[in-house]
Amino acid sequence: MFARLAILAPGLLGGSVALAARHCGVAREVAVWARRPEVRQDLRQQPWGQAVADTPGEAVRGADLVVVCSPVDSIVPLVQEIAPVLATGALVTDVGSVKAEICRLATAAAGGSRFVGSHPMAGSEKTGWEHARADLFAGRRVFVTPLAETGAGVAGRVAAFWTALGAEVATVAPEQHDEIVAHISHLPQLLASTLCSCLARQDLRWRDFAGGGLRDTTRIAGSDPKLWKTIFAQNRTEVLRALHGYQEELRRFEAALARGDWTEVQAIHERGRAYREPLRTTP
Amino acid sequence: MFARLAILAPGLLGGSVALAARHCGVAREVAVWARRPEVRQDLRQQPWGQAVADTPGEAVRGADLVVVCSPVDSIVPLVQEIAPVLATGALVTDVGSVKAEICRLATAAAGGSRFVGSHPMAGSEKTGWEHARADLFAGRRVFVTPLAETGAGVAGRVAAFWTALGAEVATVAPEQHDEIVAHISHLPQLLASTLCSCLARQDLRWRDFAGGGLRDTTRIAGSDPKLWKTIFAQNRTEVLRALHGYQEELRRFEAALARGDWTEVQAIHERGRAYREPLRTTP
Repeated sequence: MFARLAILAPGLLGGSVALAARHCGVAREVAVWARRPEVRQDLRQQPWGQAVADTPGEAVRGADLVVVCSPVDSIVPLVQEIAPVLATGALVTDVGSVKAEICRLATAAAGGSRFVGSHPMAGSEKTGWEHARADLFAGRRVFVTPLAETGAGVAGRVAAFWTALGAEVATVAPEQHDEIVAHISHLPQLLASTLCSCLARQDLRWRDFAGGGLRDTTRIAGSDPKLWKTIFAQNRTEVLRALHGYQEELRRFEAALARGDWTEVQAIHERGRAYREPLRTTP
Repeated sequence: MFARLAILAPGLLGGSVALAARHCGVAREVAVWARRPEVRQDLRQQPWGQAVADTPGEAVRGADLVVVCSPVDSIVPLVQEIAPVLATGALVTDVGSVKAEICRLATAAAGGSRFVGSHPMAGSEKTGWEHARADLFAGRRVFVTPLAETGAGVAGRVAAFWTALGAEVATVAPEQHDEIVAHISHLPQLLASTLCSCLARQDLRWRDFAGGGLRDTTRIAGSDPKLWKTIFAQNRTEVLRALHGYQEELRRFEAALARGDWTEVQAIHERGRAYREPLRTTP
C-alpha cells in the first residue's frame, strides 16, 4: 500500500506502528529515526524495518507516508524540519492526543495538502518502544482529523492505513476531537491525579488500607506528569469546559448529600451505572 | 478456636467467611441464615457448614461467634433480633463498611460487652454468595473497631478470628475508621459515579472512543446504587469533609489550568504519581 513508511521518534505507539505495518504488509520498507543516539543503536537490533536513520530528513527521504510519534510539543517542529525534503505526494500524519493546534500548524508547515492528524486510542501507562506490539491497534479506535481544507483523498489514504493495521477509524474535525478527548480521556486523568494529590495531604498510612476501588480509580495517576502537562497546555480550553461541567455535577452530589436527599444520591449512582454498563464488555 | 460460628445474611463476604473458617479450621461448626427462602434452599447445597437455619434466632443458638453480613441498614435490626437468644459469652461482629453509628447502636442492642465492629477491605463489584472464595481475606486488611468501653478481650478475640482467616487486622476507633474510608473508599466511589453521571449528559457516542483510562477510572461506578446510597447516608459527615477537601484540590488544578501555570499543573501530577507509586505493587 505504501512503498516506504517513515516513523519519527517511535515510542510505544510508533514502535507498534512499525511492527503492525510489517505484520499486515502495509509498507514495503520501514525507516525509523529516534532523537537519542543510544536509542538509535538499540533500534538497530529491532525487527522493525530496513533502516534506522541518523536524522529526520534521512528517515523521510523517499517515504510516501511519514508518521510523527514524538510528544505533542515536538510534532510541529519535526514537521517543519522534514518539510523541505518530503517527496512529492508524500503524506504526513502524527499520533498526538490533542489535535486542533497541531493540525493547523503542521498543515501550514508541511505545505500543500499533505498533513492530516491521527490519534489512536491505544496505549497504556507503559510507555517506550520496548513495549511495542504488532496488535496494539487491533479493534481500537483511531481518530483521523482533517481540516476543512484537507483533501478528501489525503484523509482517506491515512484512514485506510489505520484500517489496514486493524483499527476502527473515526473521521472528525480537530476541534470536535479535542472536545471528545477532553471529556473521555483528559477529565478522567485529572480526576485520578487530583484524587491522589488530595490524598497525599492526608495521613499516608491510610493508603495501606486501599482496596481495589482506589487502585483502579487512580491507575492512570501513574502516567508521565510532563506528558500530561503538555496535553493540558494544548487542550486547555476544552479541558476547562469539561472540568466546569464536572464540578457542576459534583456540586449536585454534594448538595444532595448535605440535605440528605437519598433519592437523588441513589439517582446519580443509577445514571452513572447505566452510563458505565457498555464499558464492562469492551476490551 | 470457636465451637459454633453463625453467619447471618451471607453474600460475597459472609459466604467467604464460611468457606475460609472451614478451610482454616477456625470453627468446629458453621450455621448460616439467609432472609429469602429460595436462597436458604440454594445454601443447603453449599459446602459451607452444618446447618441452614430458618430464622436468625435459630442460627445463633449455641454460637460463640456471630458474624452479621447484611447490608449496613439491616445490621442493627438483626442484632436487636438475636440479642435475647445469644448464648452467654457469645461475641457478635459485622462486616459493614461504615462503623460509628452501627457500633454505638449494635453495642447497646447486644448488651454487655459482646459486640465489636469489623470491616474487611475485601470484595469486588461482584456481589452475592455465589462468588464466595475461601481466600478472599488472605493478605487483605480488616478493620476491627472497638468502642472505648469495649473490653480488650472482646476486640482481641474478634481480631484473632480475622487473623486466622489470613487477614491483617488494624484496630481503630469507629470514628477514625469512618474518616479513613471516607477518603480512600467512599471518595473514589463518588468520583467514579459522578464522572459517569456527568458524561451521561454529553453525546453518548463519545463513549465508544473510551480507552483503558476511562474504563479503569469508572469501574466501581458499576457498583450497586442502593448499597452506596446507604453507605453515604451512614457516613454523611465524613464523606462531606473528604469531598470538600477534594473540591479544594480540584479548584487548585482549575486555577492553575486557567492561568496557564504549567509548573503547578505538572507539580499536581507529580504529587499524585508519588502517592500512587506504592499501590502499583500491592495485590
